[in-house]
Amino acid sequence: MAAAVKVYGPPLSTAVSRVLACLLEKDVPFQLLPVNMARGEHKKPDYLKIQPFGQVPAFQDESITLFESRAISRYICDKYANQGNKLFGTNPLEKASIDQWLEAEGQSFNPPSSVLVFQLAFAPRMKLKQDENLIKQNEAKLAKVLDVYEKRLGESRYLAGDEFTLADLSHLPNGQYLVNATDRGELFLSRKNVERWWGEISSRESWKKVVEMQNSPPPSA
Amino acid sequence: MAAAVKVYGPPLSTAVSRVLACLLEKDVPFQLLPVNMARGEHKKPDYLKIQPFGQVPAFQDESITLFESRAISRYICDKYANQGNKLFGTNPLEKASIDQWLEAEGQSFNPPSSVLVFQLAFAPRMKLKQDENLIKQNEAKLAKVLDVYEKRLGESRYLAGDEFTLADLSHLPNGQYLVNATDRGELFLSRKNVERWWGEISSRESWKKVVEMQNSPPPSA
Repeated sequence: MAAAVKVYGPPLSTAVSRVLACLLEKDVPFQLLPVNMARGEHKKPDYLKIQPFGQVPAFQDESITLFESRAISRYICDKYANQGNKLFGTNPLEKASIDQWLEAEGQSFNPPSSVLVFQLAFAPRMKLKQDENLIKQNEAKLAKVLDVYEKRLGESRYLAGDEFTLADLSHLPNGQYLVNATDRGELFLSRKNVERWWGEISSRESWKKVVEMQNSPPPSA
Repeated sequence: MAAAVKVYGPPLSTAVSRVLACLLEKDVPFQLLPVNMARGEHKKPDYLKIQPFGQVPAFQDESITLFESRAISRYICDKYANQGNKLFGTNPLEKASIDQWLEAEGQSFNPPSSVLVFQLAFAPRMKLKQDENLIKQNEAKLAKVLDVYEKRLGESRYLAGDEFTLADLSHLPNGQYLVNATDRGELFLSRKNVERWWGEISSRESWKKVVEMQNSPPPSA
């Protein structure tokens, strides 16, 4: 058996949890290495060698080192194509549909939802002042995006078609916080098809394990 | 010969020009269809059928319709793998390196650079007030990203390695405006390796043709 791949970063990070969900879906053994961001470990020279932007996660598989959660997830789907659940397509048409919804997540869904998650879930815990104007703007942006999703999910079970793919998975990290750690869960739950989709994707065993990891006390480091 | 693919949208749009550069590199014949955004054509029901977010570009190749410029570009590289210049890798390692720098573009380079392009190049033409604070914040963000690029481009000729790839190409649209239509071109030109790289990628025949298209008078519609 090959050595476990390594993921650097805390599972509470949305980008780290995206990679963890992908590894669990693909049945890839992994080792999670803590990065204490409160102590600035992500900005230290040794860490910057593997993640030059000083962000989490970083990822290692034998001799390869990668950053950017969506790129890491694509690599996992590609390298481990023949194990676990199929998260990516094999012909240009299937791949293109997954790619377009994965890009919609990265470019349209992620920007407003990560602002809302930060402002509504993290800022209060960090005793930072919330920016009401920014919240309002991004709530309106996200509502428009979810209107498009609502229509799409009335036509197909998942974003890219009949099967759960990396495009759906990629929405789990921000979706989880929005629905469970802010008072704006209605953005998802008031839209019939989005709510049905969210129920399906967030109850997958892989994702439930990630949420458990998020709720476990961090290792004493 | 197959019918030309269709691209909807004005070449002045950064996302449209990303797709055009990709098509020219891959020697794929295309037809450019105007979308008059000033008249709100991108928000009309017929257009929303092919681009549900009401953005440009939209793309059609025979029976397939796609949106999101980076997803369209991946599709072009995949479907037309055996013609034009090779922009994407074929083994998991090559692909992963391209993917990570393409994601760095989409997630780290694009957000601050598109704010700067809008604020510094487009807002004055549209007689909109510039937001000095936003400009300052995003200039600082972009400078940090370009510091990482500067280091990387001291180690390899292009972002993903020795060859020009989709990861480099994807930086052309915002880079072009930043260097040529704002007073912040120094962000690129004051960094030795970034400047060398920018000179190489922006002087490719494909990109020079896109810039020509941007500078041509729009078809009377």
